[in-house]
Order: sequence, then C-alpha cells, then structure tokens
Amino acid sequence: MNTQADISKQPQTLQLKRVGIDTYQENVAYLHRECSIYRAEGFQALARVAISADGRRVMAVLNVVDDANIVTPDELGLSEQAFIQFGNEEKTPVRVDHAGQPSSMGLVRRKIAGERLNQDDYTAIIEDIVQHQYSKMELAAFLVASGESGLDRDEVLYLAKAMLESGERIDWDEPLVVDKHCIGGIPGNRTTMLVVPIIAAHGMLIPKTSSRAITSPAGTADTMEVFAEVNLPPEALHHIVRHQRGCLAWGGTARLAPADDILISVERPLGLDSRGQMVASILSKKLAAGSTHLLIDIPVGPTAKVRQMREALALRKLFEFVGDRLGIHLEVIISDGRQPVGRGVGPALEARDVMQILENQPDAPFDLRQNALRLAGRILEFDPDVRGGYGYAIARDILDSGRALKKMQAIIEAQGRRRISIELGKLSIDIASPRAGVVTAIDNFQIAHIARLAGAPMDKGAGVDLFKKLDDRVEKDESLYRVYAEFPADFQFARNLAKHNSGYIIKDER
Amino acid sequence: MNTQADISKQPQTLQLKRVGIDTYQENVAYLHRECSIYRAEGFQALARVAISADGRRVMAVLNVVDDANIVTPDELGLSEQAFIQFGNEEKTPVRVDHAGQPSSMGLVRRKIAGERLNQDDYTAIIEDIVQHQYSKMELAAFLVASGESGLDRDEVLYLAKAMLESGERIDWDEPLVVDKHCIGGIPGNRTTMLVVPIIAAHGMLIPKTSSRAITSPAGTADTMEVFAEVNLPPEALHHIVRHQRGCLAWGGTARLAPADDILISVERPLGLDSRGQMVASILSKKLAAGSTHLLIDIPVGPTAKVRQMREALALRKLFEFVGDRLGIHLEVIISDGRQPVGRGVGPALEARDVMQILENQPDAPFDLRQNALRLAGRILEFDPDVRGGYGYAIARDILDSGRALKKMQAIIEAQGRRRISIELGKLSIDIASPRAGVVTAIDNFQIAHIARLAGAPMDKGAGVDLFKKLDDRVEKDESLYRVYAEFPADFQFARNLAKHNSGYIIKDER
Repeated sequence: MNTQADISKQPQTLQLKRVGIDTYQENVAYLHRECSIYRAEGFQALARVAISADGRRVMAVLNVVDDANIVTPDELGLSEQAFIQFGNEEKTPVRVDHAGQPSSMGLVRRKIAGERLNQDDYTAIIEDIVQHQYSKMELAAFLVASGESGLDRDEVLYLAKAMLESGERIDWDEPLVVDKHCIGGIPGNRTTMLVVPIIAAHGMLIPKTSSRAITSPAGTADTMEVFAEVNLPPEALHHIVRHQRGCLAWGGTARLAPADDILISVERPLGLDSRGQMVASILSKKLAAGSTHLLIDIPVGPTAKVRQMREALALRKLFEFVGDRLGIHLEVIISDGRQPVGRGVGPALEARDVMQILENQPDAPFDLRQNALRLAGRILEFDPDVRGGYGYAIARDILDSGRALKKMQAIIEAQGRRRISIELGKLSIDIASPRAGVVTAIDNFQIAHIARLAGAPMDKGAGVDLFKKLDDRVEKDESLYRVYAEFPADFQFARNLAKHNSGYIIKDER
Repeated sequence: MNTQADISKQPQTLQLKRVGIDTYQENVAYLHRECSIYRAEGFQALARVAISADGRRVMAVLNVVDDANIVTPDELGLSEQAFIQFGNEEKTPVRVDHAGQPSSMGLVRRKIAGERLNQDDYTAIIEDIVQHQYSKMELAAFLVASGESGLDRDEVLYLAKAMLESGERIDWDEPLVVDKHCIGGIPGNRTTMLVVPIIAAHGMLIPKTSSRAITSPAGTADTMEVFAEVNLPPEALHHIVRHQRGCLAWGGTARLAPADDILISVERPLGLDSRGQMVASILSKKLAAGSTHLLIDIPVGPTAKVRQMREALALRKLFEFVGDRLGIHLEVIISDGRQPVGRGVGPALEARDVMQILENQPDAPFDLRQNALRLAGRILEFDPDVRGGYGYAIARDILDSGRALKKMQAIIEAQGRRRISIELGKLSIDIASPRAGVVTAIDNFQIAHIARLAGAPMDKGAGVDLFKKLDDRVEKDESLYRVYAEFPADFQFARNLAKHNSGYIIKDER
C-alpha cells in the first residue's frame, strides 16, 4: 500500500474559456462530462465549484457539458458574468475545487428555522451575496425565509445597514440632498421626471438616479432615455448634478448597495414582495446615493401593491423606524393608486405625457400633474426657507412659469440629447368597450402586463395609450385604449391578452 | 393608424436545437441575443418561456447566448433534459412564448405568507413540479416555505398523498409486501443488503429498490452495483422479485413519486432537512412501490441527522400519523447513530463488510451484523405466523445457516453478476492518531465528507476504511483509518481534509 505523496506535483489545471451564455446574476461553470482531470458528475450533485487561478477565485454553479464545441475535456468554461468577475484571460490555467455552501448559508438555515438574526449575521449574508457566492436557489431560500412575517423591524434595520455597507457611498458635501421614491406598481406614474426639474429649478440638490423597468412596462430611466442619454459614468453624473442641481440618470453604473440588484433578480421572477426587503432595499440605496432627505410615495388601491390604508400605515411606520435609525430625514405620502396615472404606459407614451405637462399644454394629463406637484411641494418644504404649507404653490409656480421646462431642457442637454426622435410602435390596435356605461375599475396589473407584452420597455414606442379613465362614460365599441407594438410577435402577445381581458370594468350608468 | 391583422400569418418559429448541456433537473432554453424573432432581453427579466410545437409544450428558464456556435439567431436551444422532455427532433420549428409562473406558485406564495394549504393545493403544486414547470428558485421557495415548522401534520399527509398520486403505483397482489428504510446519515450502515436476503430467504416479499448516494459516500444501489447490475427495467425487476421474493435494485427507473427526485435536487445542495418533507417523501415512495408493511430506522447520535431522543420520538409520531392515514402498516425502530457502522465507507469497502457477514467470517463487523439482525427480526414479525419476540432468533438462524448468503448469490445471479471484480482505489494514505488514548467520538459527517471527496460513490473503490471505533484504545501514530482514492485530484482533496480534521476525538485513558 504505497502513499503517493508526489501526485500533488502533477498539473491539475484546465484551460479557462469564456462561454457566451448570459446566465443573469448567477455564475455558471461548464465542465465537460469526460473532463480530463475532474469527474464532472461527482461535482454536480453538490452543485457548486470554486475556480481559482493566480490568487483570484470565483464560485459557480456547475453545468455538465456533452458538446466539445462548448467546452472540451481540457477546458473549464465560465458564463459571461462569472468570466468577467473572475478577471482572468481565456486559456489561463485554472484549478477547480469542490466548494461547500457559502458559510453564511448556515445563518440562512437558522433564519429558515425561525430564529432572529443580528447585525453581524446580516452583514455576513450580504457580503457573500455581493461576492456572487449565492446560487439563485440559495437567494430564493434567503428571500423566502426573510420574507413577509420573517423579519422584525430591527432585522429590517440590520439588513438595510448591511446592504448600505456592502457598496460604495456618495458624499455630496451639502447639508440638503433630497430624493423621492415611489414604491411603484402604478403604470404611467412618471412623477419623477416632473419633480426633478421643479426641485432643481428651485436650487435644491436632487441627484436622482432611477432604475430601469424589471417587471413593469417602463422605469424612469427607460422613459428619460426617450429624450437623453441616461447611461453616464459617475464622474459625468457628478459634474451634471453640480451644475444643474439635478439629473435623471440610470443608477446601474454606480456600485451603490449592489446586493439589491442581485436579490431583485430572484425576487421579481418569484413574485415575492416582502415589505421588509423593500424597505431595506430602498433606504440602503438612497443613503448610499448620499441623500439626506427622502419623500416616499405609497399609492393605495385595489390593484396597487398596497391595497388597504391600514397596510399603508404599517408600511409608513416601518419606513420611519428604519429611516430614523439610519439617519435620513424621511417623510411618507399616501396617494391614489386606484388606476394608472396619466395616459401613456410605456417609455415614449409616458415621455409624451411628461412633456405635455412641462409645456403646460391644455390637454396635459391632470392627475399626473397633480401628483407631481403634491410631491414636489412636500420636497420643497424640506428647505428651511420654505414656510410649511407653501411648497405646493411654489412648485406650481415653477411649473406654470416654464422654469421647470427650461430646467428639463438643460438637464437633457447636459446628459446628451438624443439625436433621433422616437416613434410610436408601427403596429397598433384599439381595444373597444363591449358595452355603453361608466368605467368603474381599471386593473393596474393587467394594463402593465399588456404594455409589457407589447414590447415595453425594450421597445420605447411600445405600450398602451389610455383614452378612458375611472368614472368616464363610454359608448359601446368606443375605444378604451390603443396598444402599440414594434414587432409582430409582441403585438400578437399583447393583442391576445387585451382581447382576453381588457383590464377595464364598465358598468351601467345609474 | 392601421391594424395589421394579417401579421399572425407570418412565420414566428425558430429551429429547435439540442444543446449539450446537462442542467440537472432544471429546464433551460438558449436564445441568441440577436434572435431574429424574439428579443431575448425582453424575456430574460421574467426568466421563463414556454416552447411549443405540434401540440407539445415545455417550460424553461431562459439563458441569453452571444455565441452562434451554441445557438444561432434562428435557433432555439434546449438543455438535455428539456430537449428529452419536449420530445421533438432537432430542427423542428418551435414557437416561444412568454410564460408566467406556474399557476400553483400563487399557492406557494400563500404558504410563504404563513397560510395552511389543503389537499387540492398540494396536489396542484406537485403536479406542476412533476411537469418540470418549477425553476430551481421556485422549488427552493416551496421547500423553504414548507420546511421545518412550516407544515403541520395534516399538511405532511396532504403532501405525501399528492406525491403518491403524481406517479405510477405498483400492485404486487399479495397481502404482505415489506420494506425497510433508514433515514440515513450514518456512513457504512449498509443493513439493507443483509436484511433483504434474510427476509427473502424466509419467503416474505421484499421488492427493495434503493437510491444512489446524493450527498453521502454510498447508497445501497451504489454498493450492490459492486456485485451485480442494479439498473433494471421494471419488467425484469418484477420477474426477479416473483422468483427470488426480493431484489436489491436502483429505484430510479420506475416513475414512482417522481416529484421527490426533483425536490431532492434542490433540497440537498441547499442543505435543507425538513422533517415534514422527509416523511412525505419516504412514505409516498414506499406506498408507490406497493409496500404494505414498513420498518423505519431512526439512528440517534450527536453527529446523526437526529441528535436527541425527544426529536426521534417526535419524528416517530409523525411517521405513525401519516403512515396510518395512508394505510401502510408502519413500525419505527430507534438505533445507535453515534458513529459509522461497520468498517468500510464507500461502495467497495461496504460491499466487503456485507459479504464478510453473509459468509460468517469471524472478523466480520459485529455492529453492522447486529443492526441488520435487529431490523430483519422486526420485519419477520410482520409475518402472522412468527410469534412476537422470535423474529431476531429466526433472522440469526437464516444468517448463520448460510441461507442468507445463498439467497444473496441467487439475487446477484438474477440481477446479473458483475464480470469484472472491483478493486480498491490505487491511491491510499493512513491517517494516524496524534496521541495515545481512547476514541471518544467519531464524526459521521466528517468521515462521510472525506470518503466523498476521495471519489465515493462515483469511484466504487474509493472511500474510508476504519480501523478504530468508539472506546477502542490507540497508540500515538497508530492508524485510525485508511483513505482510498482512484484519481489524484480526489486523493488530494480527501487527504487535505482528513489531515485538517480527522473526525476522531482521542482522549486520555483514565
């Protein structure tokens, strides 16, 4: 029985290969089934491997490959994201090791068992997540365990702090840096694009970065992109904010609270909607972005995210508890979320609504204008020089006088005006009322879903243009809304859904 | 504004391609980023698509591809499992549709929110899982929500029934069909390979199918494979059982409770270990296999799955509650799980232990023999003709007389004797005691982990051979155990782990 101590000197490496597959926030490694060194199947049941070279290391879920065109038995493939994270060149000799679960998964299992975790625990979990150590099923396990009733308010605070500390943080070196955030779920509610120019025109600092849509038909970044470049490097963004007092950019380029983006890639497809996760996510992002004052908008309605006033109040208190302890001045406004806001749903259509309001066109959508003025008014009152109760009038004056439009044009120029204007989708169909009567309900989810299937936000010109809102009278066969799409496949998807269920309820007039 | 009603007539299909990637119990679809019909990125955020052709349909998670060698913009790729499930040939024109979550995910979200689900709910969830409609993150969400304290005992019953009804069910048309099941976690505890020949030699029907190891270093199927073919088509298996009264085969070929295999592919890597899931899984599989009488073995020890006697009792009661309502005669035995059983850990080493006992060799491992006789004795007492308390003596007589060995040889011949005998791994190293003293603890997890890294169960000859057990005296530098491996990389993994932590605690003799 001879102990072969010298085998450690044998080469135990594979050649690194970049595999052109985008696995969307999950690192995947590709190992050929007949791999010359490691037996793929032995690794596979445990699902995870660590790939290392030159002191760099990356964790990945393993897929076994039977096609040498993807990887040969002498190669180790990494999916796009994992390859970039690993930071080594193709053909680098790499080692593959069994990798257990990230150590913080033990904490997640304690959370699953119903225990309360402390600040150090959440910090450890979030650090592992940011380093892409969690597979999607592990992320799902954490989200479910910490979802709904799983987090008490102290734990939401711990989670928010951990997320805040996991990334970079901007310091604007000003006493008053304001932001607003709507918890979402209401199509067309593009208030940010009105609030930012009003506030910046007043001279307050509002360095607004926004998300792109994930499951909705348009985010503010998608809509602003109709007018201007939104994908700006951090330095350019800072320059614009200093000069214009505001911006309307995409937040994805900054590494602010990066754990959030990873968690969202699992939370959204699962349809999870945990209050604790939401509060931690929003507040950590805003603090990381350097905000000192924050206005939160919670729309309430039967097809909004928050359906009952008592839910809205509980959520308000959770925001206040965590916000106070993180040291941000936070106010919450509860708004009408019974139907889509404005008329357009989809980037180009929403951009059109915004511009009508800024230009004070007589037929500009009134509800969107009112929502924006209420929010801007409250933010203006963060300014110590604004007398309580006078914010709304100041906001209205800035809008009516054209100063908001002028500021918007300046921000568009600063970010880089889009040369070629965006057209509405070439394909369109009107969805007609099946009867005469009054609109008594409009389903936010259904309208968003139709706009999304039509191609929004990827196709800027796709979406839904609403002709009728709550309490409007309609005739039989009168158009309720028009669906726009760019591509035939999308058009069919959206049309079929709209014909199956228009999202409108029409009742007899009494 | 023209409504283009004729676009539905345009060809909207891609060519199906089999992509040689094994994604392990998760359907994956590969779409090129520049796909000619569908825009990949629009689909990606929602993660799931439905692929259809000729009335067949398969759901899959979407990966976006940037390499035309994997799929071209005109192709739609499916991973191995998804391709097989879809059942269409390559180049078949396929449609791709947005696919929402499986409808039963709404029930899973209700479970996450803490609600109690009913029989219909579990039936709907399990049906969707069996049809591969759940992604791994959705499976994780379900498992976490229904894990630990998440299921009351009625829900465990509902889940077990749903799993039972999701697959095929065998009827042996005999009044007494027995089985045994150990909840596992104790390396080397290969009692099944002794119990089956004893029971079959007595003439009782014991159509034993076993699993392969998933996270352990050997399953009964892996170990039996050292002697005989275990991968038998259902008809051959039935023929053997009718003639031999027993078999020792792999259960994977039958579609019995198929939901279980899918759930396990997520449960194991996550390290989840829910009692409710376990009970539902075991009982549904046994009933599906046609068992009327079942003996459950629960080992208890500080490094066993069940660590405290009170836990074992609670688990016993859960087995009894669900088993009684499913109509299976069930008994539970609680055994000593403080250390590995027998000497060998790994298929060939465990097979050696089993054969020593069947051949009544004087140095055969006593603990494994005793465990097997106790279990066989209790099973024999399911026979109405066996007087209560006499089972053990009958079992011992069958073993000592050589009838068990003869039956084992007959079963091996019937299943197909392996032509080439299996050797122990070429690479080996002895792990020595750092001091003189007495063995006071052996960590089941650590020994299993070392054997696993050494290559077990994939390499039959890999594993750990224990020279010392609890209460044994050892000298300084005396060997505690030997590690066997076939491949250098595995050997290094295992050796490094064993040297880092041998799994043994040696204390001074008093």
